[in-house]
Amino acid sequence: MNILFVMAAGNLGLLAAAAGVIGLLAALFIYVFIKKQPEGTDLMKEISAEIHKGAMAFLFREYKVLAVFIVLVFVLMLLASGLGIKTACCFLGGALCSVIAGYIGMNSATAANSRTAEAARSKGMAAALFVSFNGGAVMGLAVASLGLLGLGTAFYIFGGDPETAKYINGFAMGASSIALFAFVCGGIYTKAADVGSDLVGKIEAGIPEDDPRNPGVIADNVGDNVGDIAGMGSDIFESYVGSIIATVAIATTGGTVMMSRLGGGVDYERTQALLMGMPLFLAMIGLIASLVGVLSMSVLRKINPQTALRFATFIGAILFLVFAYGFVVCIFKLSYGIFLAILSGTLCGVAIGLITEYYTSFKPMLRIADASKTGPATNIINGIAVGLESAVAPTLVICIAIYSASWFAGIYGIGIAAVGMLATVGITMTVDAYGPVADNAGGISEMSGLGPDVRKITDSLDALGNTTAAMGKGFAIGSAALTALALFAAYASSAGLKVIDLTDPLVVVGLFIGGCMPFMVAAFTMTSVGKAAGKMVDEIRRQFREIPGLLEGKPGVKPDSKTCVDISTKAALREMILPGALAAVMPVLVGFGLGKAALGGMLGGATVTGVLLALLMANAGGAWDNAKKAIERGDIPGENKGSDAHKAAVVGDTVGDPFKDTSGPAMNILIKLMSIVALIIAPLLCR
Amino acid sequence: MNILFVMAAGNLGLLAAAAGVIGLLAALFIYVFIKKQPEGTDLMKEISAEIHKGAMAFLFREYKVLAVFIVLVFVLMLLASGLGIKTACCFLGGALCSVIAGYIGMNSATAANSRTAEAARSKGMAAALFVSFNGGAVMGLAVASLGLLGLGTAFYIFGGDPETAKYINGFAMGASSIALFAFVCGGIYTKAADVGSDLVGKIEAGIPEDDPRNPGVIADNVGDNVGDIAGMGSDIFESYVGSIIATVAIATTGGTVMMSRLGGGVDYERTQALLMGMPLFLAMIGLIASLVGVLSMSVLRKINPQTALRFATFIGAILFLVFAYGFVVCIFKLSYGIFLAILSGTLCGVAIGLITEYYTSFKPMLRIADASKTGPATNIINGIAVGLESAVAPTLVICIAIYSASWFAGIYGIGIAAVGMLATVGITMTVDAYGPVADNAGGISEMSGLGPDVRKITDSLDALGNTTAAMGKGFAIGSAALTALALFAAYASSAGLKVIDLTDPLVVVGLFIGGCMPFMVAAFTMTSVGKAAGKMVDEIRRQFREIPGLLEGKPGVKPDSKTCVDISTKAALREMILPGALAAVMPVLVGFGLGKAALGGMLGGATVTGVLLALLMANAGGAWDNAKKAIERGDIPGENKGSDAHKAAVVGDTVGDPFKDTSGPAMNILIKLMSIVALIIAPLLCR
Repeated sequence: MNILFVMAAGNLGLLAAAAGVIGLLAALFIYVFIKKQPEGTDLMKEISAEIHKGAMAFLFREYKVLAVFIVLVFVLMLLASGLGIKTACCFLGGALCSVIAGYIGMNSATAANSRTAEAARSKGMAAALFVSFNGGAVMGLAVASLGLLGLGTAFYIFGGDPETAKYINGFAMGASSIALFAFVCGGIYTKAADVGSDLVGKIEAGIPEDDPRNPGVIADNVGDNVGDIAGMGSDIFESYVGSIIATVAIATTGGTVMMSRLGGGVDYERTQALLMGMPLFLAMIGLIASLVGVLSMSVLRKINPQTALRFATFIGAILFLVFAYGFVVCIFKLSYGIFLAILSGTLCGVAIGLITEYYTSFKPMLRIADASKTGPATNIINGIAVGLESAVAPTLVICIAIYSASWFAGIYGIGIAAVGMLATVGITMTVDAYGPVADNAGGISEMSGLGPDVRKITDSLDALGNTTAAMGKGFAIGSAALTALALFAAYASSAGLKVIDLTDPLVVVGLFIGGCMPFMVAAFTMTSVGKAAGKMVDEIRRQFREIPGLLEGKPGVKPDSKTCVDISTKAALREMILPGALAAVMPVLVGFGLGKAALGGMLGGATVTGVLLALLMANAGGAWDNAKKAIERGDIPGENKGSDAHKAAVVGDTVGDPFKDTSGPAMNILIKLMSIVALIIAPLLCR
Repeated sequence: MNILFVMAAGNLGLLAAAAGVIGLLAALFIYVFIKKQPEGTDLMKEISAEIHKGAMAFLFREYKVLAVFIVLVFVLMLLASGLGIKTACCFLGGALCSVIAGYIGMNSATAANSRTAEAARSKGMAAALFVSFNGGAVMGLAVASLGLLGLGTAFYIFGGDPETAKYINGFAMGASSIALFAFVCGGIYTKAADVGSDLVGKIEAGIPEDDPRNPGVIADNVGDNVGDIAGMGSDIFESYVGSIIATVAIATTGGTVMMSRLGGGVDYERTQALLMGMPLFLAMIGLIASLVGVLSMSVLRKINPQTALRFATFIGAILFLVFAYGFVVCIFKLSYGIFLAILSGTLCGVAIGLITEYYTSFKPMLRIADASKTGPATNIINGIAVGLESAVAPTLVICIAIYSASWFAGIYGIGIAAVGMLATVGITMTVDAYGPVADNAGGISEMSGLGPDVRKITDSLDALGNTTAAMGKGFAIGSAALTALALFAAYASSAGLKVIDLTDPLVVVGLFIGGCMPFMVAAFTMTSVGKAAGKMVDEIRRQFREIPGLLEGKPGVKPDSKTCVDISTKAALREMILPGALAAVMPVLVGFGLGKAALGGMLGGATVTGVLLALLMANAGGAWDNAKKAIERGDIPGENKGSDAHKAAVVGDTVGDPFKDTSGPAMNILIKLMSIVALIIAPLLCR
């Protein structure tokens, strides 16, 4: 063991942990600021409290189930000779950090929703934007900071030696496990509630969205938080942690050729120490850049909201790139190629965001809206066609990013490109988490009857939130793809695989089995949403039928929201087990059953179909949603809210709901989790 | 050049060509038999003539466009140094055989449709089954016979030497090119007509399917022939030819290890000659077995139609296996493993058929029907979930087949397994082509008002045809997957690729680009159907509005079918160009641009996503169709034809139409065509 490593890893680990603590303090500061904002009328307080209570109750029940799984895996890791207590402890740490990030994010989001509505009511657009943005910022900063704090600590303990660095992989697996369950669980919860209440409320009863008479509305609003905040946060947290760990693993097992190429050939050990520390270091400067981006909003809020959000993101990204260039090239004197690889990753993220925006908000989306005129069937056919097509360009962008990153810096380039894309997660996640806060604020203003002026502000913030959510999904998929590929490279390197040969029938078998996995998980999650939504429909229909005066809106008559919350909760908890277990178990089975090359093929196959399905589902879902909104806005001549074309578009939107919020995002996590499990068992497969 | 090769190849080639001629004579004999059957009333004759005329007119226009493409590729092949006149001539031969097979099949199917209706009217179920079965048999036998005749001739000329055997690859490319265009073209034609006339007729105007008042009905019936007969026939023809050629190519480039393993190590050259001739030989005995299966129907027709069709298929398959065992093991004294590989292929085909039947006719299908009660959105969500899930089991079956075939006989095993699956194409294609004939017969009896008794017979034959069509599609996908993998192995072998390494970023890039291709082609074809169906809807609405007395059914008022036929024709011809060209050009671009390993990755990626998407689309489409039928039959308590659940199921069925009949099947051909193009350019990439 070299003293250089200990020094570097030790100091860097402590530094990263410290940066994490500072980030958490900033998040706390913002949270206190939000809490100080006025919360509005009593009715608003009451609704917000109900959403908060529902969300927290759900979170605790979810975590209780997850605890069982975590303990189970922990014990298994202890028993599996070769992994042992160190990996298991890192696993526990990763899971814990992910849970805490979700908890913080939910608390802040459910505090910011009514306050955003109140700000819209009493102070107008700029104030409402500011509150909801900061509501998201707590989540964004918490994700990045907890990642740094946890990884920094693990790095401090284990990062001092290439031999022990492999234990840190457990941290990523902890994050991944929580992410998959949380997202599948949250996704089923939110869409069962959403689809169920829309089907009966909007289509059958003809009452508006978020109408207080609808018994499913509270569950729907709770769902926005558990799905889009906690679920999405855990997904991004996983990518963030996964990309860093994959890059460390690649640097650890990199070998002489890589070191001499990337370090200028001067000093093997110094180069390796730098390359191992680089991802953590980039994450640190990314957090600082993000913080500046978040704070810049206090100035930017005065301009147009869309531009403000875009500027805040750009400030963070550009600052990060400037820092990265300065440190990598000027201070550490590493290869220029490393910076170019980082740049590839960042640009890849931007490009995917723009492509997503094109498909979900421009010409292709209007084609779907237009096809609604000939009924729901042509709406669906065109929506799926748009989704299929929209998967192609981002995948090609990812190809360009992989190709150029590996051209610039070998397989290390693929890892560091993913880190480059994810380092500014503090600000990208903020913009992403802003959407559901604004959505909830809209729901609260509708339910508490704040009037059309307020509703107009929250509606426009919500519409903007749909765009940022779609772009955020594109970003999540792109980062998941790069992270999965980095983990794939790390796996091949850790398992000592010189080649994974596609002319070997076993690898082809692995490729096909892997290709099936996303289809299986998508099928299970879609079926779960379908089943749960069906139950929700039956319950809402029952309440409208059996509670006298409910549908007529008699004063004092309230729906029984609790039963609806309960249906969503039970379905979500029950249905998350199978896909989650499958994703964790299958790589182990294939790895030990068919060998490490077949497992490599499996990861390749799963990544290809997973990325393509995720893009298809996210974009088709977003486009369907916006096509419905386009008709409502009157963008399609001759059609409006309530016309046959609008009804057809609502069908499309409903189909798109589980696409974009349940099954699609589950793909991201699936491919990362499978890769991480493979990386963890790689040392066992070598024997 | 060894005398053994010339003898073997020459004699075998002539023998195969002779078998092809005998098969064609048998087909002619059956065709004459069909023509002799009574054609029914004048109105039936008139309608049948109109369908025949429309189908032939379309076929000629399609072939005119294809001729341009064929000549273009022919010239390009001449110019590409290294391919030359021999490959180009084989290409021409393959294209020609495919065209002739399509032409014969269409002629026989359009002759058998009215005669089936007449047989149902005057003689009952058994006679109607017999006529429609023989209508399909002409196509089935023509496909197998023309394959043997063409390949036999090419084999006679070029098969005498491993050096010249590679020219035969051109034959497969000719077949593939025609197949892709024909299927995409036919698929767009038929579904534009089908979706368009259903949307206006069944849903808006509330008139039954195939009602003579509907202007789109003739186009719909023409479409059944151009899509399901000519399109499907060209797909299977391509698999048949492709699997044989891939196996020859593998044997040609096999090397010493393979020969000693499979031939018992006795004589290298004798073994290679036998292995090269084996696929053609198996196809010959498969044709004989199929012929027996077809003829057995004259006895079997007296029993229950479903059992009769199943028995005829089984007779063909079992006879083939017995022959194969006798020749491979007892007479040629080759490795027992070869027979086991053949058996794997045959069993794989059977298993996929059974799985398809389960998903499209049993519990999962009923789940979709049940979900229709809560509207079109839940019908679609459940349908897609069933489709996603249904893709998994067949893919795993394919994995087992690949694994065991390569276990038994190395990569030669993968090729010969595909041949084993496809050798009895004469009978499987017969059963498959029977469906659209029965469907058309139903249409003709509806349009000429033959009354409920006749309609009941044709309806039950049609329903059975839906099941055989779904199973046929499963078989087509399975055989396409095995053929594509065999071609992939042949490509790797011909390009001299020792490994295609998934840890090489370029291969990963190829994998992703390949993975995109099926998404792109599916998107294009779905969009085309959507656009063309939209135009069809507008036209049918216009006719109902502007032609007085049409909708009311005033005697003597006829719809303007010609304009509808024209809309479908133009859309189909225009829209087939892009996906067809893309499939042919992309492998060339990737091969020369990114290298032969990347092209290998591309084929792997395309095969994985192509097979999964094809299964998803075919099975979801079949299940939606049958779910609608289940509601119509009253299988879902409380629902029936015309209820809201039925309307929701019609939406699902309409979405499923382009899934199962346009985009899904296009996947099969796409993956084969890409592999064949790669195989053809392999020698050029080696330099």
